Amino acid sequence: MKKSICVLLTLCICFFFATVSPYAATDPLPSWNNGPSKQAVIGFVAAVTTPGSLDFTAAEERIATFDSDGTLMAEQPIYFQFLYEIYRVKALAPGYPAWQTLQPFKAALEGDMSYLARTASQGEVDLTAGTEAGRSDEEIRADTAVWAAASRHPRFDRPVTDLVYQPMLELLSYLRANGFKTYVVTGTEIAFVRAWSEKTYGIPPEMIVGTSVKVRYLMRDGIGTVVYEPAGNFICNGEDKPTAIHYMIGRRPIAAFGNSDSDIPMLQYATSGKGRRLGLLVHHTDGRREWAYDRASPIGKLDKGFDEASQRGWVVVDMKKDWRVIFPFEKGTLR
Amino acid sequence: MKKSICVLLTLCICFFFATVSPYAATDPLPSWNNGPSKQAVIGFVAAVTTPGSLDFTAAEERIATFDSDGTLMAEQPIYFQFLYEIYRVKALAPGYPAWQTLQPFKAALEGDMSYLARTASQGEVDLTAGTEAGRSDEEIRADTAVWAAASRHPRFDRPVTDLVYQPMLELLSYLRANGFKTYVVTGTEIAFVRAWSEKTYGIPPEMIVGTSVKVRYLMRDGIGTVVYEPAGNFICNGEDKPTAIHYMIGRRPIAAFGNSDSDIPMLQYATSGKGRRLGLLVHHTDGRREWAYDRASPIGKLDKGFDEASQRGWVVVDMKKDWRVIFPFEKGTLR
Repeated sequence: MKKSICVLLTLCICFFFATVSPYAATDPLPSWNNGPSKQAVIGFVAAVTTPGSLDFTAAEERIATFDSDGTLMAEQPIYFQFLYEIYRVKALAPGYPAWQTLQPFKAALEGDMSYLARTASQGEVDLTAGTEAGRSDEEIRADTAVWAAASRHPRFDRPVTDLVYQPMLELLSYLRANGFKTYVVTGTEIAFVRAWSEKTYGIPPEMIVGTSVKVRYLMRDGIGTVVYEPAGNFICNGEDKPTAIHYMIGRRPIAAFGNSDSDIPMLQYATSGKGRRLGLLVHHTDGRREWAYDRASPIGKLDKGFDEASQRGWVVVDMKKDWRVIFPFEKGTLR
Repeated sequence: MKKSICVLLTLCICFFFATVSPYAATDPLPSWNNGPSKQAVIGFVAAVTTPGSLDFTAAEERIATFDSDGTLMAEQPIYFQFLYEIYRVKALAPGYPAWQTLQPFKAALEGDMSYLARTASQGEVDLTAGTEAGRSDEEIRADTAVWAAASRHPRFDRPVTDLVYQPMLELLSYLRANGFKTYVVTGTEIAFVRAWSEKTYGIPPEMIVGTSVKVRYLMRDGIGTVVYEPAGNFICNGEDKPTAIHYMIGRRPIAAFGNSDSDIPMLQYATSGKGRRLGLLVHHTDGRREWAYDRASPIGKLDKGFDEASQRGWVVVDMKKDWRVIFPFEKGTLR
């Protein structure tokens, strides 16, 4: 009899810790290891959302901006938009013999990742302008969504959109649950990101700020249509991340998240405003689970960002130490 | 005894109609007279929001775009941004002697409304670029907000932002209560509108799409700052309303609202998509309470819009007949 009471009591305690314990139930960032990065994020959110706190910030001012490649999603061996553009260039190449010798089309046809990586957003916009001219934004997005679902990442052999960072998905949800508006501000072309951002990031098309190609409005078979032109419009990198935020959002963010030197101006812009601010850089330190790269990388180069981070008090996430899980598909094996 | 019962009964009936009657309690558009315009709007909202309806549209697709001048707010005797620019040009003129002979600055100094009206958005952007270069977006907005609060409209002798249309404010609230996202898509420069849009329209800065001046990001006294340059960037009128929607919103609206030929492409774009759509033009027909103008007006010219409206089934609001109240400040006298 006494034994069965003991068993019952143990079961009750287990049940309590598994389901009722305030820590287990309320940890908003379960894939983040406890440590200074996680505490800085949670401390910031608590400070700006607690009524009466000196740092309290009205909900409408809680704007958070996120770089995409390397911050919310992997960017190796090359920015994923290039994989889509390689598919497009190869499909269209028979009609464009000039591409055999014209860069960056030649590099796309040859799969020259090293050349393409160096062209960065300018290469992406040139390829988009060259391959999408004459198509509508709706056609491009529908095609991109089909491509993304069928794509296979060269290392992980899964759709590229599976390579989103689980800790950052938790951070996005946590911020939104605390009244933040979460925007993507990316060097990647907007239609490419909008094709899967809502499903993958929970961020709708109207909250994607990015690089764009010139478009034109026309009536096509009685339907008003926005059609891509063969020319770039805006490259959303470096100092043009804050200018894009001016054009498209119109408020200084109170939190900004990036992973490369190209994100420095956006983080400066966010964190040099008045009141409590958060800047965070993701440092790629895990060559086993993801990739390890920083100062010398042609993709996602992070060099001056380290100095700025220490001067300005930005959080630098060490992916290897700070993140218990990197990709959502790992979760089953790690828990 | 019988008489007092009668009185009591009458009081009860009055009380019921004044406070409990479903019609009085739920009319979302009390400043709209009953008629085909009001019924078209309510019928559209019911159709797209009723689960199981053939026309049901998921909340995330409920994007509604509104022109500002002449659609949400008066635009006579001239677009209100010109009144602000006249104030800026006069304040700065001592430092810019060339403006005495350089258009459109000369016209602003002379108060030549007729000249300024003809320059439209191009004139607004030239004046903004000329008067705001070197200032930050934050300085411009703070100054505009102070100016707007102190401004006196030449006819109504009140702040210009008082000249917002009460029926359109009700429409904005009604759409938002039904899950719509309401955007402004305007030919006016964005900082000017963002200075008062949240207070006046309930529309935050991040949902203002409009004409812009070139800006540059720089560090100023250690603070990351977006500063205006002396050049235009984008004019958001006519066929560039749909292109601006592509760049900044990334979804085809399901409802669009305008008042002039410059809004035709935006209404075409919205209403030629699949599924139930609403296009609405505000026709200025009330010379007594507001202004009466259309085909021949240099401001808010509405001419081809009538043909498009009848071909495409757009609602044309007759302000005189359809609107019980025009401005919020009338309400006290009319009720």
